[in-house]
Amino acid sequence: MKNNAGREIPEEFLNDRKAFESTEIGHPEIQRTAPKVRVSTGDDKVVESIEDVVKSTVKDGMTISFHHHLREGDFIFNKVMDCIINLGIKDLTLAPSSLTNTMNDKVVEAIKAGTITNITSSGMRGSLGEAVSHGLLKNPVIFRSHGNRARSIENGEIKIDVAFLGVPNADRLGNANGMTGDAAFGSLGYALMDANYANKVVLLTDNLVDYPNTPASIKQTQVDYVVKVDQVGDPDRIGTGATRFTKNPKDLKIAKMVNDVIIHSPYFKQGFSFQTGSGGSALAVARFLRQSMIDNHITASFALGGITKPIVDLLEEGLVQKVMDVQDFDKGAATSMKENKNQQEIDASWYADPENKGAMVDQLDIAILSALEIDTNFNVNVMTGSNGVIRGAIGGHQDAATSKMTIICAPLTRGRIATVVPAVSTVVTPGDSIDVLVTEAGIAVNPKRQDLVEAFKKVPGLPLVSIEELQQRAEKIVGKPQPLQFTDRTVALVTYRDGSLIDVIKQVKD
Amino acid sequence: MKNNAGREIPEEFLNDRKAFESTEIGHPEIQRTAPKVRVSTGDDKVVESIEDVVKSTVKDGMTISFHHHLREGDFIFNKVMDCIINLGIKDLTLAPSSLTNTMNDKVVEAIKAGTITNITSSGMRGSLGEAVSHGLLKNPVIFRSHGNRARSIENGEIKIDVAFLGVPNADRLGNANGMTGDAAFGSLGYALMDANYANKVVLLTDNLVDYPNTPASIKQTQVDYVVKVDQVGDPDRIGTGATRFTKNPKDLKIAKMVNDVIIHSPYFKQGFSFQTGSGGSALAVARFLRQSMIDNHITASFALGGITKPIVDLLEEGLVQKVMDVQDFDKGAATSMKENKNQQEIDASWYADPENKGAMVDQLDIAILSALEIDTNFNVNVMTGSNGVIRGAIGGHQDAATSKMTIICAPLTRGRIATVVPAVSTVVTPGDSIDVLVTEAGIAVNPKRQDLVEAFKKVPGLPLVSIEELQQRAEKIVGKPQPLQFTDRTVALVTYRDGSLIDVIKQVKD
Repeated sequence: MKNNAGREIPEEFLNDRKAFESTEIGHPEIQRTAPKVRVSTGDDKVVESIEDVVKSTVKDGMTISFHHHLREGDFIFNKVMDCIINLGIKDLTLAPSSLTNTMNDKVVEAIKAGTITNITSSGMRGSLGEAVSHGLLKNPVIFRSHGNRARSIENGEIKIDVAFLGVPNADRLGNANGMTGDAAFGSLGYALMDANYANKVVLLTDNLVDYPNTPASIKQTQVDYVVKVDQVGDPDRIGTGATRFTKNPKDLKIAKMVNDVIIHSPYFKQGFSFQTGSGGSALAVARFLRQSMIDNHITASFALGGITKPIVDLLEEGLVQKVMDVQDFDKGAATSMKENKNQQEIDASWYADPENKGAMVDQLDIAILSALEIDTNFNVNVMTGSNGVIRGAIGGHQDAATSKMTIICAPLTRGRIATVVPAVSTVVTPGDSIDVLVTEAGIAVNPKRQDLVEAFKKVPGLPLVSIEELQQRAEKIVGKPQPLQFTDRTVALVTYRDGSLIDVIKQVKD
Repeated sequence: MKNNAGREIPEEFLNDRKAFESTEIGHPEIQRTAPKVRVSTGDDKVVESIEDVVKSTVKDGMTISFHHHLREGDFIFNKVMDCIINLGIKDLTLAPSSLTNTMNDKVVEAIKAGTITNITSSGMRGSLGEAVSHGLLKNPVIFRSHGNRARSIENGEIKIDVAFLGVPNADRLGNANGMTGDAAFGSLGYALMDANYANKVVLLTDNLVDYPNTPASIKQTQVDYVVKVDQVGDPDRIGTGATRFTKNPKDLKIAKMVNDVIIHSPYFKQGFSFQTGSGGSALAVARFLRQSMIDNHITASFALGGITKPIVDLLEEGLVQKVMDVQDFDKGAATSMKENKNQQEIDASWYADPENKGAMVDQLDIAILSALEIDTNFNVNVMTGSNGVIRGAIGGHQDAATSKMTIICAPLTRGRIATVVPAVSTVVTPGDSIDVLVTEAGIAVNPKRQDLVEAFKKVPGLPLVSIEELQQRAEKIVGKPQPLQFTDRTVALVTYRDGSLIDVIKQVKD
């Protein structure tokens, strides 16, 4: 059947999942779930070796989880997975908050060993994306946004048996935070879900501190074991990867245009709120926005999301009242959390769970997001590359796109590849939740937002164009690509934030 | 049958409850429970009248809850109950964290109206205690310690349908804390359980602040409605009631003796921890202990429990490293929480849930607690008065008594009434968890603690006596009282912290 994003969903996956219908969540009643807790006085939590704790917790067929707050500096994942592989444990479901490049080869190894047979993640890249796209994994990967992962953990769709969580400090009973220590990474936002809902919670730290450790983002009431390791991560590599700051003139041009869109929108007023993603242009927007806020004597009530140093600078300057922080993308943002009480750590549920009593994203005025592809229906792909191979992550893309004005900023083309296309190869975020596309070649407003069209028309110099025109210009530059070749086998399910199937990813033909 | 505290438990109550066996909790596996959540974007939470929100949430037969952090200054309980009574709602179970004197008459009125037919609470006093002891309530009250309430909420024994929580500040989505505003009362520790587990959470505040309100002890993800009221409470009356500071010479003498016991115990060493209750002598201990810590160059790793200004002063002086704060007993403690990051708010589960992965009380070295009666088996009564009438509260008594050295401090007699008795009228805390009794007439060590007996014997001037001797001295002063007269009807169940029945309270004879 075709879902409401126009994508063919194989019937076999519609037994226990709905097809995507709408970006509206409505008011369902959700019975939340809760962990099974083994009672203890907490006196014997410190374990000397990862192997000991794996042996006493992980069994064949279980679901295990990790967080990705240490990003490319993570030393925990590979150590734990090595141990699990070596113990010959089979048929695990891997359910991390996301997978970073440093984990790729180890996951491939674990799949080949039969250790991992199911994966749910925000995304994957590199050798792992290649392997999965070529059919290595037995069962389809389930891709979930950060908000959808929170939702699925809270309603029991994902039942984590054992969570392995690296932390830059912990006391012997498991009180921990992300703010101090050599591997400080700031907010523990995604990991807080695992700490709260996993049956068994294992902390790994290189920094065992005096009891009681406060503030305790993760609490002793949630933790079963604390393992002392040599090094949790490399703090200098936490801020690398998807979050490098751009010096590209095209990106800077786009960033300036995004700023123009923002300040001429009805949302740019005292107390507005915004989220910038981790793409090159998105990060640069913060700089332009700063000047606009100063010039117009406007301050923001909050900035949301993955937080960067430029956002924290706005907080320090008083241009932003509160930073609501689910994840820190660089060391500057990570280390400022303990200094500034207005930089509030939030968990992934508070950030973006769509089946909540109100998440932060529901209150968001403006979201600035990136895209690998966007089509003439404004559908966005942030998951598969031009060769059809998995090389991205949903992250909070679908979640933040619920904002009152969601702006996609992307170059018209990348090398010989068009960004604006007739139809994206994978729909991740439905066009219905995208309001504006900003490229260096012009600004396209979603036709359903005639209010914005009218507002922007009045602004001299704003280069408004139709998205079809942008698509045609891109095609003129790079030509019509050969259609991608896939087999019939589904290697990944892309779920919308409410759990419905918005698209599937097929195995690429060799 | 007789339970292991030697109390007769009527068979009729043993169908769905165990009789008390032991203070050891062991390592059971507990399936936690979770609320049912109605999904919303959070935009329509602010409701103008209590009546509107009661009408749309409370139905016959439900369980409703309140917190008692505002103590004798609470203005919320009576307002909400008035509304519920007037709407003619019947057969409710009232499950507050505790009941203070300001609520007594309203609960009696609600019982008479058929609005309330079941109660679980930490305790009750005054007109309500009298009424219940004389048989007014249809079903027996279930008394639970703070830790046991947390346990029961977490495992589903108490399923709260609607929680009404007064807060001194909240934003329009329900982010709230106890630290600022006219009615600031500090820690929201007990209320955090209700916010986390109730199906519907209603905040009532006189101080609607800008969104997003941080720090958020209660989060928007937990809250359904925010009601604006004229005044949440009288901040000057939060610190009254059970927590007044003593000037009584006898209490001060006992406090000094308690300090002597502490400093000559094996637990008085660098990094020790302690909790003082809210009784007169217990509060005075903090003053003596301060000087002993200075003289001996010893600092405490943490002070726990209901927190008072003298404890916060120790934190400010650096004599205590961390204050772990589930509740504030006075304005000084309440207002310091927002200033001192080492005063950590903890919820009732973290404080004392016995079915946890380690609660703070499990790590406690020394607890100083009070008693209405203590018997020669060291069993303590903090619930019924000398006339058999309910006039107290378990509070954290059973919970803190799990400390390595639990000291009961009490005068030998009060007026014409003995404190040390052959058998307490109601066993609340089993003698097995009590280590030392300090009275102005001498210090009795529980015979099972021969290690402490040996330690104290070496100290010149410590007036060690047997508890039997103390009991006889008391009897010599006040004589043998007439035995209390009760009917056969059970008006209250006293549960131990693990939920087992440690005693029952019978209806008094008129």
